[in-house]
Amino acid sequence: MPRSVCTIIGAGEGLGQALAARFAREGFDIALVSRTEAGSAAAFAAARAAGNAASVRYFAADAMRPETIEQAIARISDEMGAIELLIYNARGAFSACEPLDMTYAALEENYRVEVVGAFAAAKSVLPAMRARGRGSLFFSSATAAFRGSATYPLYAIGKFGLRALSQSLGKAYSRDGVHIVHVRLDCDLDVPVMRDLYGDRYAPGILADPEDVAQTYWLTYQQPRSAWSNEIEIRPHTETWTF
Amino acid sequence: MPRSVCTIIGAGEGLGQALAARFAREGFDIALVSRTEAGSAAAFAAARAAGNAASVRYFAADAMRPETIEQAIARISDEMGAIELLIYNARGAFSACEPLDMTYAALEENYRVEVVGAFAAAKSVLPAMRARGRGSLFFSSATAAFRGSATYPLYAIGKFGLRALSQSLGKAYSRDGVHIVHVRLDCDLDVPVMRDLYGDRYAPGILADPEDVAQTYWLTYQQPRSAWSNEIEIRPHTETWTF
Amino acid sequence: MPRSVCTIIGAGEGLGQALAARFAREGFDIALVSRTEAGSAAAFAAARAAGNAASVRYFAADAMRPETIEQAIARISDEMGAIELLIYNARGAFSACEPLDMTYAALEENYRVEVVGAFAAAKSVLPAMRARGRGSLFFSSATAAFRGSATYPLYAIGKFGLRALSQSLGKAYSRDGVHIVHVRLDCDLDVPVMRDLYGDRYAPGILADPEDVAQTYWLTYQQPRSAWSNEIEIRPHTETWTF
Amino acid sequence: MPRSVCTIIGAGEGLGQALAARFAREGFDIALVSRTEAGSAAAFAAARAAGNAASVRYFAADAMRPETIEQAIARISDEMGAIELLIYNARGAFSACEPLDMTYAALEENYRVEVVGAFAAAKSVLPAMRARGRGSLFFSSATAAFRGSATYPLYAIGKFGLRALSQSLGKAYSRDGVHIVHVRLDCDLDVPVMRDLYGDRYAPGILADPEDVAQTYWLTYQQPRSAWSNEIEIRPHTETWTF
Repeated sequence: MPRSVCTIIGAGEGLGQALAARFAREGFDIALVSRTEAGSAAAFAAARAAGNAASVRYFAADAMRPETIEQAIARISDEMGAIELLIYNARGAFSACEPLDMTYAALEENYRVEVVGAFAAAKSVLPAMRARGRGSLFFSSATAAFRGSATYPLYAIGKFGLRALSQSLGKAYSRDGVHIVHVRLDCDLDVPVMRDLYGDRYAPGILADPEDVAQTYWLTYQQPRSAWSNEIEIRPHTETWTF
Repeated sequence: MPRSVCTIIGAGEGLGQALAARFAREGFDIALVSRTEAGSAAAFAAARAAGNAASVRYFAADAMRPETIEQAIARISDEMGAIELLIYNARGAFSACEPLDMTYAALEENYRVEVVGAFAAAKSVLPAMRARGRGSLFFSSATAAFRGSATYPLYAIGKFGLRALSQSLGKAYSRDGVHIVHVRLDCDLDVPVMRDLYGDRYAPGILADPEDVAQTYWLTYQQPRSAWSNEIEIRPHTETWTF
Repeated sequence: MPRSVCTIIGAGEGLGQALAARFAREGFDIALVSRTEAGSAAAFAAARAAGNAASVRYFAADAMRPETIEQAIARISDEMGAIELLIYNARGAFSACEPLDMTYAALEENYRVEVVGAFAAAKSVLPAMRARGRGSLFFSSATAAFRGSATYPLYAIGKFGLRALSQSLGKAYSRDGVHIVHVRLDCDLDVPVMRDLYGDRYAPGILADPEDVAQTYWLTYQQPRSAWSNEIEIRPHTETWTF
Repeated sequence: MPRSVCTIIGAGEGLGQALAARFAREGFDIALVSRTEAGSAAAFAAARAAGNAASVRYFAADAMRPETIEQAIARISDEMGAIELLIYNARGAFSACEPLDMTYAALEENYRVEVVGAFAAAKSVLPAMRARGRGSLFFSSATAAFRGSATYPLYAIGKFGLRALSQSLGKAYSRDGVHIVHVRLDCDLDVPVMRDLYGDRYAPGILADPEDVAQTYWLTYQQPRSAWSNEIEIRPHTETWTF
């Protein structure tokens, strides 16, 4: 039996790295996609260290340029084999600004990463998945997909669009055996940059551990197809959730 | 007391025309904005016929080019006076396609009309409204803003983004006295093109009458500011709603 | 033309009183329903003072005993005429407790007021409204209908149930010409007891003025039937809304 | 290490039986709770047949009488050991009727099974789970929890209330290490009674296989606590979902 390929687009430190390690540990071959090779370096090392993947490879693509995603996925399929799972983990800049300070350029760029790039990934893998009658397509998202924000409007607008895309794809292609999931993180991740941002507010357990989040992706991946979730929320047990 | 200006962007036949007539009847001066003068002709005639507006004028702008919206609104403010109410009624193409048949260009164009153009309108009127401590900004939207679609994915993606924008603006600027409303039509409008599409399925009362919809806009406009709605749904009494 | 009757169940100080005055001012005859006559006294006086109602009357009923609601409504219809609008404004105790401190009795009582009583009101007025092909049935509710609460679980459980009832009725009977609305207050009301609770946090404008809320009910009542809202949210412009 | 106890309230044929078998297979001891021993017989046999449970036992309780649930859970804890997972799988009658045909008695009974009984279960197991800092409490629910219904209003009202309860508990007690999950089935189950109801509309794959649903419960149970879902949806890949 040939090994299965897991492709991660936006395979940086934090969640990307944890996902690469988690699926490598289960025996997937891992294809990491980011703009620069350095951007995937931590995920690359983690997948190698997980020990179980026959192959871990890097492919260049820029989420802002959909044709580069198409090309990367074509190469992965050619050189590594059928993609069993694609995780779209790229995201736009998460920078605070009030709505009136958004620029048109920022609105467009953000959309290109959050929605157009995600669609390019879907477009590149779905025909083969539908033909095979199986495959999984996961979109990393956030609670911002559920409500607008006075302070992070760009992020909300992008994630709303991503959720609409994910639902539309799920409604159209689940029946072909492809598991399409919008994974909503309702929390911040416990990574160095966040610990710094939290400063004195940081305490163990208040942020989601990336390895735990990757574990929940892995569990969701295993759902049998007559009992699928298409939208998953993830939050630490300490989260005071409002939605 | 100077007359108040109501600006309608996307003032075509159907809802745009009904809104123009409704607010003209209440004594607003009416500024109609569309790509071509012909596109506003029916709304122009209806506003004139309503009889109560001192002034009904047309201004050119292309919702796909945000700077043209800025320019049109600057001219309206200069030549007609402070804008009391702006209704963003432009929308992207409402054409059916399955998700994988969307093109990147269509995704971008649709977003430009639905979200970037709406933001350009907001950006152009909000500073003056906030300075005056009053004003209303209504976005015409649809149930597509609430769920993805296997058959109209472009429309859903655009309307999700528009809703995120509307919520973000509302959360940031309501406190300054500006009423920001996402108006969700949960139905089709009773206009000739729809009657044709419905064919034998058409029956009186199953579609929303544009004049009635305009009336509900007008009622919503009158809400006092300690009892505002920021998201309004509109459906005919015959609608079998699923959400 | 005979005058229209507006019935308010739960016509206490605050919103009940403001609604009584508002609809009296528009020329409705007003029927006030509460457990004790004293409970409707302020609303009674306000409706009288509004000056336009030919008739303001009190009827006894206990929201906890549905047959008393049936009896009160039968008497109102007999003695005052067809009910054009019924506002169910009763609510359970709004007392804080953590979920594990709820008692079974409190869960049952709360449900009886929030859901069973509301259904008794619907059951009592809908047959006549459907027969006439017109009428309005408004349920006063709260944001608690949209999310559970670690501190007010009883209130959330009751309001979720009320919303389910309202949607079910709307889906079944709107087509008969009856306007059924779940009115969600996303704020506290500016009434003496709330000012006391807020203490130093109180400031003008941060709470919803009951008269303004009543005005938004009145505007919603006027929606034409091809452009109805079935769920309305109400919040002051100063509210930092999370949903 | 002592074996863990999984308690299932409402352990009938269909999902209850599949859950009993699934968790028995993982080595849980199984406590089955239903009104009559016959009601648990299929689940009992399935758990035994799964082969891995040291102990499978039946306990009598009536979901309509919360004190009997308390008593059953007290006995289970005493005689079998600490409850690691409780699944509340009881539900009210799923019978079609239009809203105005609901009786007050049916409204109350339905609530007693859907909400009061679920709360009795929570009240009985949470103190020990909180003290141990671990445990899972799953509520079997349905899409009816998300929207009212013109044809199944009782079911919707009950499930809305159950969801409010689940959210309230989750917001209050997740921080103590207890995983509280509202499991929403967005489909019918592939059980004999449903196949009969579907008749000619039945086809393989259009209903959710109870064993697959049980598998998704089992996967959800394994989520690590910094990456929990509190609301899970489950639907077959063939489902044309509207929400």
